[in-house]
Amino acid sequence: MFNLTDYLENKRRIIDNALEMHIPTEDVRPSLLHKAMRYSVFSGGKRIRPILCMAAAEAVGGNGEDVILPAIAIEAIHTYTLIHDDLPAMDDDNLRRGRPTSHTVFGEAAAILAGDALLTLAFEWLAESRAPTPFLSYQYSLEIAEAAGSRGVIAGQIEDLSAEGAEPDEELLEYIHLHKTASLIRAAVRVGGIAGSANTGQFDALTLYGCNVGLAFQIADDILNETSSHEILGKPSGTDRKKKKMTYVSLFGTNASREKAQLLVDQALDALKDAKALTPPLEHIARFVLERPR
Amino acid sequence: MFNLTDYLENKRRIIDNALEMHIPTEDVRPSLLHKAMRYSVFSGGKRIRPILCMAAAEAVGGNGEDVILPAIAIEAIHTYTLIHDDLPAMDDDNLRRGRPTSHTVFGEAAAILAGDALLTLAFEWLAESRAPTPFLSYQYSLEIAEAAGSRGVIAGQIEDLSAEGAEPDEELLEYIHLHKTASLIRAAVRVGGIAGSANTGQFDALTLYGCNVGLAFQIADDILNETSSHEILGKPSGTDRKKKKMTYVSLFGTNASREKAQLLVDQALDALKDAKALTPPLEHIARFVLERPR
Repeated sequence: MFNLTDYLENKRRIIDNALEMHIPTEDVRPSLLHKAMRYSVFSGGKRIRPILCMAAAEAVGGNGEDVILPAIAIEAIHTYTLIHDDLPAMDDDNLRRGRPTSHTVFGEAAAILAGDALLTLAFEWLAESRAPTPFLSYQYSLEIAEAAGSRGVIAGQIEDLSAEGAEPDEELLEYIHLHKTASLIRAAVRVGGIAGSANTGQFDALTLYGCNVGLAFQIADDILNETSSHEILGKPSGTDRKKKKMTYVSLFGTNASREKAQLLVDQALDALKDAKALTPPLEHIARFVLERPR
Repeated sequence: MFNLTDYLENKRRIIDNALEMHIPTEDVRPSLLHKAMRYSVFSGGKRIRPILCMAAAEAVGGNGEDVILPAIAIEAIHTYTLIHDDLPAMDDDNLRRGRPTSHTVFGEAAAILAGDALLTLAFEWLAESRAPTPFLSYQYSLEIAEAAGSRGVIAGQIEDLSAEGAEPDEELLEYIHLHKTASLIRAAVRVGGIAGSANTGQFDALTLYGCNVGLAFQIADDILNETSSHEILGKPSGTDRKKKKMTYVSLFGTNASREKAQLLVDQALDALKDAKALTPPLEHIARFVLERPR
């Protein structure tokens, strides 16, 4: 019987160890910079993206530990986006995961630079991940750079900022979430698929899974922002409404949003099943995304 | 007879064409983001780093055009550091190369994101530069990520910020300049050396050349900030003094700084000569660094 809690805990430990080993400690000059990088990376993240990367590799017969460097690179990139998104010039958030945000603790300059440094370090790891062949290394880099760049995560963030207070628009909302959230999750499972030598059908199914689970993840986030408490979220709730953010909840209400997320997950699991790449971890993580408390 | 002006102009045209081809245009969504990226990349930069990358490849028997992707990747990274350095939270500069800085034109959020996107795009190009072999692609990435990261350019920037108003300290000054400026120039010539299959002696000489010319470049910059005019610099002069920046000029005065820069260039050229890798372009570019008007 598959135990999701144990699976997540086991993978999280592997990922945290790798991050611990690969990010310079405070002893390395410049101390403040490395302290700021570590502060945000080790702040209780769920490590969903790197776990999905490893789970996807395993689902198609690969070894999860073979993708540990791309997996932590994706987590470092995710972390840098959070640091920059929280800046006063962006979302201006003071709390995340129950702790003061980077710029609140280290100042804006150090927060910007810590983000820049995590993004750069991610590509250093990707270059180092040349095992088993350099051929994979550049494929990982390309996949992740495209997902994180100006037509991926960053596109979502800039459109998200300009959408604050704008008229509700379903097409725009989907664009934002596909880019800002789904894009990197999709890249995580695709990298796993590449590492595990997925066949075409499996690779397409993993791509759909990443995309749909990524969207469902964001819808769940929107619902939690509306319905959860400061205590559980580790940051104020109801902030989307206050900032007039365009969210699934503001467009369709809580119930329809929940149904939409459920449908996305069902489609993803069907696709994986058809491609014979549905494993208990990929199934349970997708369901967890819908039901997670925060 | 070697003509430096023609050489620089010819290389600059190749580099500008490649940048033009590889950065998404404003037609590509999100328009504002790509506009901001292009605004800073096409703002009259001298393209010293990518030119040195190509010249170094040629000096050891390689083909300059083989390194065009790493060369423009280095230029994109250089540009992102300028955008972020100019931000209000950092150096708070409103003018660069005679034009308003990115955040002045597009706002702080878009400027931060344009910088992030250029950094990410650089690594996308590096992943794409797998010709002639993927083996080189990850070597380029590794070299450039190390030079640009938390123990390279970013280390120099954070120490530079914290050094404002501090007691003069030669060791700290050298640390800042080696990291903030020399690091990426050194990487540029090393990448050229890798591409041209430099032998060990040549590679070491190129490394010293990159390091010394990089330092000389920064010393020349410090001198220009003190002695040149707003009109020639395209930005206010004397700003280092106003901000109490630690510079070679503030520590040693203009004359001793000039001598130091000259000595660094002489050492670099001697090393290249000994390694039989001294070409007219590498020689004249090094001298140009000392004598450039801006």
